[in-house]
Amino acid sequence: MDFKLELKKYQELVNEELAKYLRKEAVPESILNHSVEYSLMAGGKRLRPILMLKTYQLFNENIENCMSFAVAMEMIHNFSLIHDDLPGIDNDDFRHGKLTNHKKFNEATAILAGDSLLNQAYIVISKSLLQEQQLERKIRALSEFTHSVDRMIAGEYVDTEYEGKQISHEYLEYIHNNKTGALLKACCRIGAILAGAQEEDIENITEYANHIGLAFQIKDDILSETGDEKVLGKPIGNDKEKGKCTYVTKYGLEESQKKLEVLTKEAIKRIEKYGEKGEFLKELALYMMERNK
Amino acid sequence: MDFKLELKKYQELVNEELAKYLRKEAVPESILNHSVEYSLMAGGKRLRPILMLKTYQLFNENIENCMSFAVAMEMIHNFSLIHDDLPGIDNDDFRHGKLTNHKKFNEATAILAGDSLLNQAYIVISKSLLQEQQLERKIRALSEFTHSVDRMIAGEYVDTEYEGKQISHEYLEYIHNNKTGALLKACCRIGAILAGAQEEDIENITEYANHIGLAFQIKDDILSETGDEKVLGKPIGNDKEKGKCTYVTKYGLEESQKKLEVLTKEAIKRIEKYGEKGEFLKELALYMMERNK
Repeated sequence: MDFKLELKKYQELVNEELAKYLRKEAVPESILNHSVEYSLMAGGKRLRPILMLKTYQLFNENIENCMSFAVAMEMIHNFSLIHDDLPGIDNDDFRHGKLTNHKKFNEATAILAGDSLLNQAYIVISKSLLQEQQLERKIRALSEFTHSVDRMIAGEYVDTEYEGKQISHEYLEYIHNNKTGALLKACCRIGAILAGAQEEDIENITEYANHIGLAFQIKDDILSETGDEKVLGKPIGNDKEKGKCTYVTKYGLEESQKKLEVLTKEAIKRIEKYGEKGEFLKELALYMMERNK
Repeated sequence: MDFKLELKKYQELVNEELAKYLRKEAVPESILNHSVEYSLMAGGKRLRPILMLKTYQLFNENIENCMSFAVAMEMIHNFSLIHDDLPGIDNDDFRHGKLTNHKKFNEATAILAGDSLLNQAYIVISKSLLQEQQLERKIRALSEFTHSVDRMIAGEYVDTEYEGKQISHEYLEYIHNNKTGALLKACCRIGAILAGAQEEDIENITEYANHIGLAFQIKDDILSETGDEKVLGKPIGNDKEKGKCTYVTKYGLEESQKKLEVLTKEAIKRIEKYGEKGEFLKELALYMMERNK
């Protein structure tokens, strides 16, 4: 398997699916729909839906039954980015090298575009429930989904609340586990649940998710300090300036890098048992560790 | 039936149900939970959940199966109020005679409290789906629910977008149908669907909802001009000042009052066929017409 090629293939697949939900009709709220499209199609890495689809494929080949949830999760991720960037929260001007939603449109539009995307995720899932196949699995997946979004919002709140304050290791982990970790964990669990995996495998894949989740956030913190502004598409060194407490500002770069590597190794261990089928998820963990944006 | 007494009884019932979902534990995001509680328990009239429950009771006595959706709808209504009041949208300082959420807490908290409430509505519904009784009805109700929220957000967007501009009758109706009408219509339809009503009755009750929905918005517009500031709990005459196009600013008070009365009468006609069981919904239409807040 050529990892990069496979990643690109799945990114395109997710983009095609997302494009099906874009609203092109001339309606009074057209600009709201443009603004949703602007953010949703701004060139994200699609890590969450791909993580879900590839976890699903550990246990089941036909990803069709998983696609709605994968797309819905990407909508949630993008809603959270639009709202996090708002002047009232992070007040960021750039994302993926483009103006943030409220800078490109305006604040009211960005607030409502975020609201709309959050809700559209549930439109997509509810459509999938109407199809009635594998209803039990889907309802369990929906429950995981709703709770992960709840945790993500709580994590974002705590992150915002403690900006500029010294926080304990416990709080820092709380923020990471919720703000970034919750959705990544849900992606893996939902993939496994929808595919009909055994409970034991669902737990195992949850451990994989927990490790890459924390690793993902630490990598984000490292990139926020040392990344290339042009590649990253947003200003560097903002965290220290804003008094944000991150892994890097708390433990330094070297310690953070070490932790990142240990977590990635631990994550990969969980996938060994799936042999060749797990190849992509192993490579994905490495890719997330080595990424430059 | 003593309408006022019955209304109060159901308001208390809804409040008790909502209280079950308030989060009291000491968690890092406690203040976010306080802020959700602050808005959710600020003394709203609970019209939407009561409308749903009472429509349900036209066809089915045991309201237990409807309660989750009723509570979820009230959460949606409150999320929309929190976000509408934000500085980036309506920039209102008071609601129900109390400071708006972002004034009492701060903007970040208000944005995230709204997001959280929107998502909590789906947590509540997903719990109800896990119970598995009447699954087919619940899934259809969820679909109605998601689409009504979508329409409400679109209506709010168009309302904001056209503030201070002259708009056509068509656009004014579009705003009303979506911003206020969509949720009210969904309340009636979901009540009927969950109760197992015949399609013919679902359509009939939809007509009732469409009429009271538009009546409700016209009454809101009238109160915005002529209401008692102390009773209403928010400043009067704001619409004209902000250049908002409403029924009243467009057609004048007299014409608006006439339209309100015709719509209410039409709504009541739809309920005649349910005899005594429809008494409350008839009285409710009159109450909504005559309310002073």
